[in-house]
Order: sequence, then structure tokens, then C-alpha cells
Amino acid sequence: MTPRVEDAAAQRGRGRRPGGPDTRAAIVDAARSSFAAKGYDKASLRGIARDAGVDPALVHHYFDGKAALFAETMAVPVNPSELIERVLDGDRERLGWRLAETFLTVWEPPERREALVALVRSSMTSEDAARMVREFLGREVFGRIAASTGAADPQLSGSLAASQMIGLVIARYVVRVPGVATASRDELIERLGPVLQGYLVDDPRRPE
Amino acid sequence: MTPRVEDAAAQRGRGRRPGGPDTRAAIVDAARSSFAAKGYDKASLRGIARDAGVDPALVHHYFDGKAALFAETMAVPVNPSELIERVLDGDRERLGWRLAETFLTVWEPPERREALVALVRSSMTSEDAARMVREFLGREVFGRIAASTGAADPQLSGSLAASQMIGLVIARYVVRVPGVATASRDELIERLGPVLQGYLVDDPRRPE
Repeated sequence: MTPRVEDAAAQRGRGRRPGGPDTRAAIVDAARSSFAAKGYDKASLRGIARDAGVDPALVHHYFDGKAALFAETMAVPVNPSELIERVLDGDRERLGWRLAETFLTVWEPPERREALVALVRSSMTSEDAARMVREFLGREVFGRIAASTGAADPQLSGSLAASQMIGLVIARYVVRVPGVATASRDELIERLGPVLQGYLVDDPRRPE
Repeated sequence: MTPRVEDAAAQRGRGRRPGGPDTRAAIVDAARSSFAAKGYDKASLRGIARDAGVDPALVHHYFDGKAALFAETMAVPVNPSELIERVLDGDRERLGWRLAETFLTVWEPPERREALVALVRSSMTSEDAARMVREFLGREVFGRIAASTGAADPQLSGSLAASQMIGLVIARYVVRVPGVATASRDELIERLGPVLQGYLVDDPRRPE
């Protein structure tokens, strides 16, 4: 019988967990606990491997870096780096619309929406969750996009784009403000596209 | 000695509270409890007068309607109707910037920011607070502005503008995402102005 994650500490004394179908799940469980306890930046892949009772090489075998592992704990099925590449790759004049579409594609399905809503909701009252929103959504997702578009103030541009999407999540799924709560995906892409484009590409102070 | 608000029920049997400096504060206290318990729509000025132990005419004497009384419980010193008039009155091409400036003028001072942050934070976990955000911010503030600008879909336009400002409050004051957390008032007005303008005035589907 495969030991449960909670037995990882006990198991460490008896040797490390080998690779296998349960190993991947054990790593994700350990990562979820570690991110929640330490925040995105301070959680290390090495520490997560130790908590899961596996060799660090196995973490790298299953996951393409910390952002990918965090996304997996958030039930996001794709490596955020790939999504960001997809948004950046293509017609620059349509970047805002591609970002809106990608965001909604990733987070509209109910089971993933729940994880995002839980994170945003927790960030109101827990400094750990707030740090995760700052470091993952703010920096790893929107910050990286803003840094790639040549906006004059990437940090402000990226954080404003993040603020719109945080507000969207709250207004649409949590507070359910009439209008945005029931709008179709296509309506939202049409309205959010130019806003994200304005923040991330057409910065008014961007040197021409 | 003037009876405290909590004595209002007892006091009712002995006759109503006369007008005076404490009366206004008693009405605001009763309103705060009533809005919190019943939500914006279901709280009535008559019920608030009864809870405060005053004649309903006194509520109308002190406050210019329910929105003004709610704003007072939120520590906002101005009747929202006047603020909305100020935003609507003037160059239509600059409406978004005037709205950003007005919003920040009203809610940047720490003591009022606290009330707004408390409302938005509570709306994550309490259906009563969520209803207040929907009915007050969503409908009475942003909905009324959108309805006055001739946007093709005022409810969607107003709620998207509200979503941006809810996200701003969270990103700037609660989660403190680097960039938006420390931006100056003027930087925010410069960046939020065109976004609110786009949602509320330059709706892409507005008939020309």
C-alpha cells in the first residue's frame, strides 16, 4: 500500500518514495501546503520534494518549474509560461484580446474558477494568500507580459491589468454584479480586450 | 441624559426622540445596522427612523434620500447624487478621467478608504455585503452613470467599470500589488481615465 502524504515524514526515515502514479499527486499535495504556508517565493522545489518524500529530480521530472507546479495546485492544467508565450506570440495589436480570451479559457471552467476564487477571496484576509496573488498573478503572469511589451512602466501597467482581472473575478463570480455576472465569454473578451491592450501595449507614456 | 441608540426600543414607549445634535448620529447608527442586516434595497427610511426612535420627517430633514444616508454610513461626506452630477456635468470626452478623479478624491482619505475596504472585503464572505456592493456601487453609482451616457448596454458597461474600481481597491489597498499599490493619484487618474471612458462612453457597440 502506498503511504499517504501525511506519512511522508515517517516515510523519509525508511527511504524515498519512488516514481509512480501517486508520486505526482503527492508532490502536488506537498506543494499546495508549502505554497500556502510559505508563499510563492519562499516555497522551494527542494523543500517540496522533501515534504513529499521524493528525490528533487522527480519534481523536475514531473513539473517544468515552480510556476508550473503552482499552477497545478491551482488546478490550472497548462504551464503559465506556455500561456504567456501564446499571448505574446502573435499580432501585437490584438494582445489584449488574446489575454482576455486566454484568461477566460483557463479560469471559466467551474472547478478551476473555484480555485481562483478561493485564492482571491483568501487574499482579503490572509497575508499568505495576498502574497501569492502579488507574486504569482501580479508578477509571474501580468508582470511578465508587461515586461515583454515595452510598456514604459511595466510594474504599474502589469498591476493595473491584474487589478482589472481580480475585479472581474470578484464582480462576476463572487459578488455577482448584474451585467458582468451573466455576460457571455465573447462579450467580456470584446470589452476587456481594449482595456488590457491599453494597459499593456498602448501605454500613453510609452516612447513611440 | 440622551438615551443611547441601543435604548431606542425602550425609548419608543416613552415617546420619540426630538431633533438635536445626537439625533443625527442616532439615525446614522440605526441606518448602519439596518443596511447591514437587510441590504440596501430592503432597508427603509421609515424603518431606520423607527429603530432610531425619531419621526421619519427628521430623517428626511437630515438626509437627502437613502443613497445619501448610506454614503454617510460609509463615511462619505457628500451625497453620491451630487458626485454623479459632477461627473456627468462637463466635457463628455473627459468623463472617464473625472470619474477616476472623483472616486479617488472621495475614497483615498484613510478613514473613508477603511469603510470601502471593509465593505468590499465583507462582500467576499457575506451575502449582505455583496448585495450592498451590487445595489450601491453597481447600480446607484456606476449603473446610474452608464445609464446617462447612452452606452448600448448600460448594465454591462456600468458593472465592468465597477469591476475595475473594485479590483483597484483590492490591488491597491488590500493585496498591495507592487505598482498600483504605490502609484500616485495622478498616475492612476491618467491610466484609469481612458478605461472608464471606454466602458462608459466609447462603448464599441454604441450606435454612432
